[in-house]
Amino acid sequence: MSWQATVLTLYPEMFPGPLGVSLAGKALEVGTWACESVQIRDFGIGKHRAVDDTPSGGGPGMVMRADVLAAAIDAASPEGDPRPRLVMTPRGKPLTQERVRELSAGPGVVVLCGRFEGIDERVIAARGLEEVSIGDFVLSGGEIGALVLLDACVRLLPGVMGAEHSGHDESFETGLLEYPQYTRPQVFEGAEIPAVLTSGDHGAVEKWRRARALEDTAKRRPDLLDSDDAGNDAD
Amino acid sequence: MSWQATVLTLYPEMFPGPLGVSLAGKALEVGTWACESVQIRDFGIGKHRAVDDTPSGGGPGMVMRADVLAAAIDAASPEGDPRPRLVMTPRGKPLTQERVRELSAGPGVVVLCGRFEGIDERVIAARGLEEVSIGDFVLSGGEIGALVLLDACVRLLPGVMGAEHSGHDESFETGLLEYPQYTRPQVFEGAEIPAVLTSGDHGAVEKWRRARALEDTAKRRPDLLDSDDAGNDAD
Repeated sequence: MSWQATVLTLYPEMFPGPLGVSLAGKALEVGTWACESVQIRDFGIGKHRAVDDTPSGGGPGMVMRADVLAAAIDAASPEGDPRPRLVMTPRGKPLTQERVRELSAGPGVVVLCGRFEGIDERVIAARGLEEVSIGDFVLSGGEIGALVLLDACVRLLPGVMGAEHSGHDESFETGLLEYPQYTRPQVFEGAEIPAVLTSGDHGAVEKWRRARALEDTAKRRPDLLDSDDAGNDAD
Repeated sequence: MSWQATVLTLYPEMFPGPLGVSLAGKALEVGTWACESVQIRDFGIGKHRAVDDTPSGGGPGMVMRADVLAAAIDAASPEGDPRPRLVMTPRGKPLTQERVRELSAGPGVVVLCGRFEGIDERVIAARGLEEVSIGDFVLSGGEIGALVLLDACVRLLPGVMGAEHSGHDESFETGLLEYPQYTRPQVFEGAEIPAVLTSGDHGAVEKWRRARALEDTAKRRPDLLDSDDAGNDAD
């Protein structure tokens, strides 16, 4: 059974888009995952297939209609579909690597992409949508956020990254930023690779990497250290 | 003068990709911005145009070489180029709407997309790269992060969103999440639009929206309220 992504959007031509090349593209080709996109406009109202209307209470732009979105969701993800239903929105819960791991371990996702000023709030409760934000900035729509979410999930699917790479050493997997990386040449514009890394002493390398991961996290992202038991996973 | 984006990547075919349609696509067509992608492999070493090597100190995967990346940067963004040079990495500073506004007000950006296990740390200082993260999760490469960054910037360029929409009411612009939105129909599956929004009383609408923005931010993202003078911008 492959991992099934269904994306509800006004721009189905954006999918799989950049996920059609590289690792995600190969995985798509061999059936590790599947990507279906559903045109929300097909569920629009009337001759012009309207999907939006002016905001109640006034203000610029347009809001996507609850009834149209509900019809699109019901068609794409009928009752009994075990996949979580997500909507990409800056009002959502910030996406974390932990949630990405959970989603990639499941049967797939249904992702609704908002546009314009947003979506009618009532469809969120009515269809049990999980509001997800990819960061504290605003995009022109949910589509590029959906690409982020799918890329993060797909790379964790079995076989996608290759057997030797578990992903467990990466940023956020240990609650820390990853240590800095170096490779040949030994000297680049006068700067040398830290000597410990070429010493052949695996214990010393481990210790250095752990220290640098902690040091860089403390300097750059102290919020990661505050939030929980980060830094103790290796003990 | 249009806003100039140059992306350094092993997958130039990913650009403009999803940014070639919708608002960003129209803006690209009319010359509001330009998107150039540079193939890093063209600066690779030897017959096979190698761009990476094994990590110093061991570990899975490959690391992108400092000398190759420096050559690509020097060609794409010679000395005197006024544009900031960014590299997308989970080790970077989280992207904020404030930084997006600054970048969109400037001449453009040069964006380096890492792949594999990352890039040789030494090129970051050597070429003055600003490390940018779009969130606490890991992607298969910097490309989709670069699409996020570009989309966020491009929508703020003059004329892209239309004159009536300043973007100033949105999530994060006021230090708060945006208030929830509603539109017709008046009743959706038994749920009504909050009465105040259809009252015609603009002052009451404003007050309700401000209260909901504060309430939802407190409930969903208390970290936004802690961090600074959020919530006082309108006073």
